[in-house]
Amino acid sequence: MPSAGHSAAPTGFAYLGPEGTFAEAALAHLTRSLGAVDRSAQPQPSVGAALAAVRSGACRAALVPMENSVEGSVPATMDGLVDGDPLVVTREVFLPVGFVLAVRPGTTTGQVRTVASHPHALAQCRARIAEVLPGAEVVPTASTADAARRVAAGEHDAAVCAAIAAERYGLDALVADLADHPGAVTRFVLVEQPGVLPEPTGADKTTVTAVIADRTGALLDLLAEFALRGISLTRIESRPTRERLGVYSFSIDCEGHVADARVGDALAALHRLCAEVRFLGSYPRADDHPGKPVDEHVGDDAFAGAQAWLTRVREGRAV
Amino acid sequence: MPSAGHSAAPTGFAYLGPEGTFAEAALAHLTRSLGAVDRSAQPQPSVGAALAAVRSGACRAALVPMENSVEGSVPATMDGLVDGDPLVVTREVFLPVGFVLAVRPGTTTGQVRTVASHPHALAQCRARIAEVLPGAEVVPTASTADAARRVAAGEHDAAVCAAIAAERYGLDALVADLADHPGAVTRFVLVEQPGVLPEPTGADKTTVTAVIADRTGALLDLLAEFALRGISLTRIESRPTRERLGVYSFSIDCEGHVADARVGDALAALHRLCAEVRFLGSYPRADDHPGKPVDEHVGDDAFAGAQAWLTRVREGRAV
Amino acid sequence: MPSAGHSAAPTGFAYLGPEGTFAEAALAHLTRSLGAVDRSAQPQPSVGAALAAVRSGACRAALVPMENSVEGSVPATMDGLVDGDPLVVTREVFLPVGFVLAVRPGTTTGQVRTVASHPHALAQCRARIAEVLPGAEVVPTASTADAARRVAAGEHDAAVCAAIAAERYGLDALVADLADHPGAVTRFVLVEQPGVLPEPTGADKTTVTAVIADRTGALLDLLAEFALRGISLTRIESRPTRERLGVYSFSIDCEGHVADARVGDALAALHRLCAEVRFLGSYPRADDHPGKPVDEHVGDDAFAGAQAWLTRVREGRAV
Amino acid sequence: MPSAGHSAAPTGFAYLGPEGTFAEAALAHLTRSLGAVDRSAQPQPSVGAALAAVRSGACRAALVPMENSVEGSVPATMDGLVDGDPLVVTREVFLPVGFVLAVRPGTTTGQVRTVASHPHALAQCRARIAEVLPGAEVVPTASTADAARRVAAGEHDAAVCAAIAAERYGLDALVADLADHPGAVTRFVLVEQPGVLPEPTGADKTTVTAVIADRTGALLDLLAEFALRGISLTRIESRPTRERLGVYSFSIDCEGHVADARVGDALAALHRLCAEVRFLGSYPRADDHPGKPVDEHVGDDAFAGAQAWLTRVREGRAV
Repeated sequence: MPSAGHSAAPTGFAYLGPEGTFAEAALAHLTRSLGAVDRSAQPQPSVGAALAAVRSGACRAALVPMENSVEGSVPATMDGLVDGDPLVVTREVFLPVGFVLAVRPGTTTGQVRTVASHPHALAQCRARIAEVLPGAEVVPTASTADAARRVAAGEHDAAVCAAIAAERYGLDALVADLADHPGAVTRFVLVEQPGVLPEPTGADKTTVTAVIADRTGALLDLLAEFALRGISLTRIESRPTRERLGVYSFSIDCEGHVADARVGDALAALHRLCAEVRFLGSYPRADDHPGKPVDEHVGDDAFAGAQAWLTRVREGRAV
Repeated sequence: MPSAGHSAAPTGFAYLGPEGTFAEAALAHLTRSLGAVDRSAQPQPSVGAALAAVRSGACRAALVPMENSVEGSVPATMDGLVDGDPLVVTREVFLPVGFVLAVRPGTTTGQVRTVASHPHALAQCRARIAEVLPGAEVVPTASTADAARRVAAGEHDAAVCAAIAAERYGLDALVADLADHPGAVTRFVLVEQPGVLPEPTGADKTTVTAVIADRTGALLDLLAEFALRGISLTRIESRPTRERLGVYSFSIDCEGHVADARVGDALAALHRLCAEVRFLGSYPRADDHPGKPVDEHVGDDAFAGAQAWLTRVREGRAV
Repeated sequence: MPSAGHSAAPTGFAYLGPEGTFAEAALAHLTRSLGAVDRSAQPQPSVGAALAAVRSGACRAALVPMENSVEGSVPATMDGLVDGDPLVVTREVFLPVGFVLAVRPGTTTGQVRTVASHPHALAQCRARIAEVLPGAEVVPTASTADAARRVAAGEHDAAVCAAIAAERYGLDALVADLADHPGAVTRFVLVEQPGVLPEPTGADKTTVTAVIADRTGALLDLLAEFALRGISLTRIESRPTRERLGVYSFSIDCEGHVADARVGDALAALHRLCAEVRFLGSYPRADDHPGKPVDEHVGDDAFAGAQAWLTRVREGRAV
Repeated sequence: MPSAGHSAAPTGFAYLGPEGTFAEAALAHLTRSLGAVDRSAQPQPSVGAALAAVRSGACRAALVPMENSVEGSVPATMDGLVDGDPLVVTREVFLPVGFVLAVRPGTTTGQVRTVASHPHALAQCRARIAEVLPGAEVVPTASTADAARRVAAGEHDAAVCAAIAAERYGLDALVADLADHPGAVTRFVLVEQPGVLPEPTGADKTTVTAVIADRTGALLDLLAEFALRGISLTRIESRPTRERLGVYSFSIDCEGHVADARVGDALAALHRLCAEVRFLGSYPRADDHPGKPVDEHVGDDAFAGAQAWLTRVREGRAV
C-alpha cells in the first residue's frame, strides 16, 4: 500500500541528478508540457533515492531512466519499481543523449592531458576519445555534470558531458558529437504513486512485471495471452529473481492501455497464470511509432459484444 | 429466435423411431431418471423431424443420436442443431448398441435364407453374417425394428436388431452379439429449446460450433483459447460449410459448464475470434470419465480474483 | 507390412459397387485420366471389401468414398485405412452427387405409390419426396442402383438414384435434381498399396492419422507443428479409439506433399509427439482451391538453407 | 568470417581488467580447470578491447562479464558478441562478487573521510556506505582495483573492492560484506573464435541472438519453436536494433547443446523464421541447476526415429 502520512506536501519533481545532466533537460521539457504549476526539480543521488522521494511523499513524481539504446535497460529502475510500495509510470520521455567534448575556452586538443566523465559516458565514447585524444589519461567522475564542473574548476582538461552541462559551466564544445555510436536515445519514465490513471489516448503503452514458474512453456503461455488478444510487446526482459533459483521475472512493455478491453483482459489472465504480477502503469507512448492497428476482433466493441452474448447464453436466452 | 405461439402445449418426448430401437430404451431410462411427469414418447421418422417437433413446440424435447463409436458422428444431428432456430443439449446418454440375430421361435441358422436390417446395422455385422449365414441374402429395411417386425410377419427369415425389438415382436435371439466389433456405444443427446440451463455438477460438458476464417493458424488460435484456460476437448470435427468454399465449421465438445468462469471466458473469446459461434448446451457428462482436474489458476476463484485485481488497477488503487 | 505372395496379378480397380452408382462413373473418369491400361472395374459390396481386395493384391487400387458434403466423413473408409496393412491414397476425386427421381417411361407422379432407394439417399431427399410424392411409401434398398434395377423390374414405382443408373436401366428422370440441399459433392479417394509416391505437383494434399495422449493441450501442440511450418489443414476430425478410453485419434488432411520440406518436417514432428502416426498418402488435390501460397520461410530453400547453416554451426565454422 | 593471418600466435587469455578484479580470480580458476598450458592473462581496458584481442588473434580467448544478478546484463558484451566477426562462448563461470571496505592497516571508520570505487560498486553499496561512513565523501575510480591501489598509495582513505584487491595492495577489510544486497553473482563467459565446439556434457547451455520482424505474435512463434521441442529458456532479453525502428533483437540462453537433436532442430527453425540468427555457442552450464529432464519425445532417439520413419515414408515403403 502507498505510504500515508507524508511529512510535508510534495513540492515537485525528483530526478536522477546532478544538475546539468540529460535528465534535468528532459524534466524541464516534461513539466512544461504537463502544465505543472510547481516545477521545482530536486536532483537525487540515485534512482533509488528518487523513487524513495516519491514513495515517502516528499516529491510528487520522479523522472528516472528506464533504458538506453546503447547501454540497455537500467536495473536500478526496473528493480526499484518492483521492490517496495507500488509506484506507476505515468509518462515516458525519449531524450537523445549526445556527448560533447567540453573544455575551458581556448584549450586545444593538443593541450588535453586528462579527460573526465562518468564511466558509462567514457565507455560510449571510448573509440572516439582514443582517436581524438590518443595520449590523454581517462579519469572517472561521479557524473558527466561533475566532470564538467571539475574541468571548469581546472582539475581536469576535458569533460565528456551533455551540451547543457558544458553551457552551464562555461565550457566550449571541442567536439560536438563524441559518441562511438551516434544517435543514442535514453528513455526516461515519470513515476508517481498510484492514483487516477492517465487517460487512454489511442496510442499508449502499459508496463507490467510478471513472475512465472520454472516450467518449459510457461513464458510461451504468458506471451500467448498477449498474442491471442492482438497485443504487441515493445520490450521484454527476463530478470533473475534473487530469492528463488530457477524462477524468472519478466519485465514487459506492451501496446495499449489497461482501460482497453484487450489489455485489461490480458493482464487479468496474467494475474491468474503468474505467481506474481505487478502493474506498473499505462501512459501515452512518446516514441514516434504509431502502434499496430487494432484488429476488430480484439477491439472494445468485440469484447463488449462477446460479454453480452455470454450473459445471454448463461441466462438461457436465444444463442 | 425460438418460435413463439405453439399450436399446443408440448406433450412429451420425440425420438428417432420407430419403436423398438435403441433410442426408445434410452429415452425410457432417461425420462425416469429425470422424474418427468409426462413421459409420452413420440417416435419420429428422422432426426430432422424430431428436432422440428421441438422447434415447433409440439414436443418438449427430443432424444437423437450424436455419435456412434463405430459409425462416427451423425451429420443429421450436427447439422440439424446448427441450422434453424436455436436448440440446446441438456443431457447426454451413452447406450451400448449390441445387435442380436432374431428369428421366429424354432428357426435354425440353416433355415435362414434372408436376413434383414437397416444398412448401418448390416454394415456393422457384415463379417459375422457372412460367417454365421454364409448363403443368406441380405435385405435392407428402413430400421432395425422394421426388420424385426417383418420377420415376425414372415416376410424375412432373420433380423439384425436390438434385443428390445426381438422381445417386442416375440422373436428369439439365435446369436446374442452379432457385431463385428463388439462393445459399440451410441451417444444420444436430449435436445430442448433454450431456457434455464442444467445446473453445473462439477462434471459437465459443453457443446459449441464455431465457423473460422480460412487462415493458416486460425484453428490453432481457436484451440489455444481452450488450452490456455485449461479446458480439455473431448471431441472436435471439421464440417464443411456448404455455402462458403474454404470456410470451415468446427463442432466441439469440451469439459466444463458455461457457468464455469473458464468455459464462459473461452466461449466469449470464441465469439470475438470466430465468424460465427453457436452455443449448443452445457449438461452433465454421462460417460464414466471423471474429467480432468481443474488447475487452480483456471478455477472460478482465480477468475474472480483476477477481475477484482483488474478493477483495482483500473481505479488506480494499490496494485 | 504389405502382404506378399499375391495369389494372382492385380487385374484392375475395385470400387464400392454396385454398378450404376456414382463411384463407377468417377472411376471411369479417373482411369481414363490416369491412362491406365487395365481399366477393368470390380464392384465390391463394401468399403472394407474394396480395401481388402487391394491388400490381398487381387486389385491394383480401390476407389472408395472419403467424405460427403452432406453426410460427412465415411467411417468405414477412415477406419479401413487405419486398421490392417498399410495403404495409401494416391488420388482424390470430387464427384457431384445429384439424385434423380427415376420411373419407367410413361409413369406420372400421380401413379407412384412406392419410392425406393438406399436409406442415405432417401434421407438426403426426404423433404422433396414428401413434396413431390406426398402419399408414396418409402422403401429401402441395398443401393441406389439396386433401387433403379427393381423399378425397371416392376417391383417398385420410382427410384431415387444417380442419372447413370436411370440411364442404365432404361428409366426416365421425372425430377432431375431431387436433393433437399442441391450441390452435394462426394470426395472419393483412390487407395493403393504403398509404393512410389505420386510426384509433387505444387498443389497437393497429405493425409495422416495421429493418436495423441489424453492431455490438455496435446491437440494444440499437434496443430502447432503444422501452423509453425505454415501448413494449412483442410480437414480434421477426432475419432474415438475403441480400445483406450480418453485417447483420441485425429484424421487430418493438410496442404502440401510429404516430399515438401515443411510437410515432411511436420510429419516427423508428429512422429515424435504422438503415440502413433500413420501416413496415408500425398496426392494431387482435385478440388478447385488453389492452396495457400507458401511463405518463403517455410519453402524448401529455407529448409535447405537452415540445414546447411546448422551443419556449419555444428562443425564450428563461421556462424 | 574469422580473421586470418594473425600477427602472432595467441599467447593466452584476455580479461576485463585491471588486475585485482573479480575477473582475474575467475580466470585463474578457469584456466586451471581447463588445464591450459599458457595461462598468461592479459587485462584489457574494456569488454570491447578484450573481444577485439580474440578477434585479432592476439589472445586465444577472453573472459568477459555477461550478466550480474544485481546489475543485469552487460550490454557491452551482448553487443560486442553480435557486432563484428563471429565469436562463440565456450565456458561460463559464476563468481560471487562480494565487496569489502578496504583500508590501510590501522585505519578506523572514524578516520575515513573519502571512500573510492568504481561507480557500479558504489551503487551496489550505497546504503551500507551511508550507514557505516555517514560523513565520507564518495570518489569514483576507473575500477575497484584502482580504488584499492589509490588507497594503498594514500590518495583516499577507503576502497570498496574485491577481497583479492585488498590483499594484493596490503589493505585490511574493515567490513567484510558491504553490498546492500548480499549474495550478488556475476556470470562471466569465455569467448573464442569459432572452432571445434565443446563436447556435450548432458548439462549444457546454448546462446543465440535472433532478430525478428515487427509482427504481433512473432516472438510467440520464436518461443514456440523452443517449447514444442521441450527446450527451456534460462534467459531472454529484447535488445533494440539501432538501425531499424520496430525491429527487435532477442538474446536467448536455452538449455541443451546444439549437438542435441532438439536444440539443433530449434535453431534451424529460427534460421528460417528470423530475419537474422547468430549462434553464440554451446557450453557446459556452470550454475548449480540440474537442467530440466528431457522428455522422451524430444530426445535424440526420438528425432532419429522420426527421421528414419520419414525417409521410409518418402521412399514409399511401409508406413
